[in-house]
Amino acid sequence: MKDFNYQQLDDIIHSRIRLTIMSILVGVKSAEFTYIKDKVKATDGNLSIHLRKLESADYISMSKSFVNRKPVTTYKITNKGRKAFKLYISRLEKIING
Amino acid sequence: MKDFNYQQLDDIIHSRIRLTIMSILVGVKSAEFTYIKDKVKATDGNLSIHLRKLESADYISMSKSFVNRKPVTTYKITNKGRKAFKLYISRLEKIING
Repeated sequence: MKDFNYQQLDDIIHSRIRLTIMSILVGVKSAEFTYIKDKVKATDGNLSIHLRKLESADYISMSKSFVNRKPVTTYKITNKGRKAFKLYISRLEKIING
Repeated sequence: MKDFNYQQLDDIIHSRIRLTIMSILVGVKSAEFTYIKDKVKATDGNLSIHLRKLESADYISMSKSFVNRKPVTTYKITNKGRKAFKLYISRLEKIING
């Protein structure tokens, strides 16, 4: 008998907004905060909370720099994050496809 | 530019346990409570809460009957639930595949 053990789905990734952030970051080298915000259509505050949660898990990394004297915050997926995302997707597919 | 609007993902389906319940019910004519519980590996209480939430949304329907004088609770996906699940999956794929 096949199991559908939902607890195998990584809860850090599974939130709708964090799954979306990870889906964006997995496809690019890095992305600025404003770029992610435009794509995700979230408020600054809400987006920040979820970026921090992904950062705490070491799934993404953040760096700050200055472009034309303006501060720019950039995010990218880590190796750990890439692995976790891949595992999440494969488990998700298993559950959905029964 | 492609959007990743996470709010388009049906929140009723998106919880890990409800997604799992829906994935099970979409593949069968109907399923008894104990069958779902075995597959999902949830406690009675937790499973009941989420089944009720899916029922409230008219995504699944519940019926009670007696087999050998023992009460049996059976669930099945509704047409509305099947449509919502299909839409959820197609939006999920869009987000994941960027």
